[in-house]
Amino acid sequence: MISAGTTLRTMRDRKPLVHQITNYVVMNETANATLAIGALPVMAHAGEEVEEMARLASALVLNIGTLSEHWVESMLLAGGAATARGIPVVLDPVGAGATQYRTLTSRRILDVVDVTVVRGNAGEVATLVGAQAEVRGVESIGAGMEPADLAREAARRLGVIASVTGPVDYVSDGDRVLAVANGDALLATVTGTGCMSSALTGCFLAAKPEEPLEAAAEALAAFGVAAEDAAAKADGPGTFHARLYDALYALDPATLDDRTRIT
Amino acid sequence: MISAGTTLRTMRDRKPLVHQITNYVVMNETANATLAIGALPVMAHAGEEVEEMARLASALVLNIGTLSEHWVESMLLAGGAATARGIPVVLDPVGAGATQYRTLTSRRILDVVDVTVVRGNAGEVATLVGAQAEVRGVESIGAGMEPADLAREAARRLGVIASVTGPVDYVSDGDRVLAVANGDALLATVTGTGCMSSALTGCFLAAKPEEPLEAAAEALAAFGVAAEDAAAKADGPGTFHARLYDALYALDPATLDDRTRIT
Amino acid sequence: MISAGTTLRTMRDRKPLVHQITNYVVMNETANATLAIGALPVMAHAGEEVEEMARLASALVLNIGTLSEHWVESMLLAGGAATARGIPVVLDPVGAGATQYRTLTSRRILDVVDVTVVRGNAGEVATLVGAQAEVRGVESIGAGMEPADLAREAARRLGVIASVTGPVDYVSDGDRVLAVANGDALLATVTGTGCMSSALTGCFLAAKPEEPLEAAAEALAAFGVAAEDAAAKADGPGTFHARLYDALYALDPATLDDRTRIT
Repeated sequence: MISAGTTLRTMRDRKPLVHQITNYVVMNETANATLAIGALPVMAHAGEEVEEMARLASALVLNIGTLSEHWVESMLLAGGAATARGIPVVLDPVGAGATQYRTLTSRRILDVVDVTVVRGNAGEVATLVGAQAEVRGVESIGAGMEPADLAREAARRLGVIASVTGPVDYVSDGDRVLAVANGDALLATVTGTGCMSSALTGCFLAAKPEEPLEAAAEALAAFGVAAEDAAAKADGPGTFHARLYDALYALDPATLDDRTRIT
Repeated sequence: MISAGTTLRTMRDRKPLVHQITNYVVMNETANATLAIGALPVMAHAGEEVEEMARLASALVLNIGTLSEHWVESMLLAGGAATARGIPVVLDPVGAGATQYRTLTSRRILDVVDVTVVRGNAGEVATLVGAQAEVRGVESIGAGMEPADLAREAARRLGVIASVTGPVDYVSDGDRVLAVANGDALLATVTGTGCMSSALTGCFLAAKPEEPLEAAAEALAAFGVAAEDAAAKADGPGTFHARLYDALYALDPATLDDRTRIT
Repeated sequence: MISAGTTLRTMRDRKPLVHQITNYVVMNETANATLAIGALPVMAHAGEEVEEMARLASALVLNIGTLSEHWVESMLLAGGAATARGIPVVLDPVGAGATQYRTLTSRRILDVVDVTVVRGNAGEVATLVGAQAEVRGVESIGAGMEPADLAREAARRLGVIASVTGPVDYVSDGDRVLAVANGDALLATVTGTGCMSSALTGCFLAAKPEEPLEAAAEALAAFGVAAEDAAAKADGPGTFHARLYDALYALDPATLDDRTRIT
């Protein structure tokens, strides 16, 4: 059953620990989004501790935004520990399609780790299923398929929940496709908002691991509602960014379901 | 003598350089807090330069929030240079107790470096003295001792000033215990506010190295007053975070002592 | 011809990709400044991908603020790819003069890479030309030459456009010297504003590579105008920082030239 409000309430009650191995650019941002929504973030990337940390966590988020070899190895170690424990794993394949290294690393993680949700833009996800894609840096310029079809196809081929974000987000388990129509254009003016949506996906999965399709869509809807609230009080990207944490923190489980547009 | 206002005035006159080897999540935040209070931050972690940089600085802050082996080695090198010169060193044992690697690294630094102040939450500090502790990620869930007792005990056992932060902060040299009752609940909603308090401890120690107990308490009190001011103008974690730098910058040495609650 | 408005309009039309290998402290900040002004940032530092990424980009920005050996090697690789393609390269020699490692690394990059613009404070740039300089951490305390003379001298000796920022900025190709008198004192209270000005220099060079002297001066003027707008709505460093992105985003190409003070 889809109810972002119910999942949010559960999350705030349990305060799940969400282990994130993510890029240097957005670490502070994803940690703050995790705290603001009501979960506990922890960032740890050393080979010496990632398995131990992943075993303490209720979800793991892997983000390749500024990858290098040591970090990839730690992602595989942490992913292995998460797979062994059966906790949800989110993969954010930042920039897959822009360079070979990012494309191959994403595939390597998908091969070894039992990834629950892949959250990316259309170009990144299209790259992973071998469809036509254009990625410039970490920005999706275009993909050869409609995003709803792409989400379904990616879910089938990769054996994951595919979460393709854009003006409208599409989340699929290979069978059903949920569309999420919340959000605001200012999201595209701040770096790391995609990474934040991946982190929040981890938070919602930690609160509702038994329904990952629903949890992934709820996370994007809740983030989109917060973005709408932040945009209403913002004068541009900088004040929007600050207000986004205010809005995540202020999300009200009692009214959230009336505002989410998931179909 | 305790006077946060006097120490703040001295700091702003001298603009001491505070060398920080800290975690990726909060580097920007601790640098900005250092600048806003009136000191000069410098971040440098390469083995090739940390000793030279530490020799230029008036205080060194070591924070293990996202550690890995190269960084630990650099912390030991910089700590050695700081010890040789006799400048104050602050250790922030982020996440000690959550993983073995963090606990052992904290102990390794304490063994090799002449640490002046250990600033941590109750769970982290309790871990270092071998007391009962619960740390989840980087969050303190509980400790087996009252925080005032814990601060005194940690100071004695570790031979440092122990600065245990929480709703009320306790700072001890093993004999006296100072309680600091400034602050705001919003501090817990932003990542890195603990790390900022460690950085500011370094700034105050740089301005008053001869009285480290007093300087450590003054730093926490000044930070707490700034948090109170920021909270008064904030709508949530994001605007609080931005306003925190405004408030640190606006702290007035002439009125600060009237507002600090150090007993 | 100098017209920040025209270059800004071109940049927003083309949305050039600006590859940045920069320091941990400011990655989020320079990425957000790049997005806000209207270009696309990408951060990538792995030896496995930096050449491929640099070949996709319209400009490369190298910033040594938190350097270590692997990063330096990647800067040299990316710089080589940029040189081979003839795209503009900006070097920000953060902290040159503070430690030998920073000074030598800056020289090593200048030796190997065809650097278009060196953007630094007076102490850093003076260090690179062997003039008297005082650098404390990453802060310029003093230089033995007038900044206008320093810019001309550095441009001649290093064979670059030298962009020396301070209360008034001076940009020179070794022959002409442009002075830029925009900006606000609050810029000095936020870490990474110098790094942002280097990133924006990369954005303007990407839009007008054929006139690097003019583009470099326009970048500083546009950033200075945005700082003036942000300061007008700020209560201190934190709100100034947030408002700076709002102001970069709101810069109007139609009126910008009336506000820039380039002579």
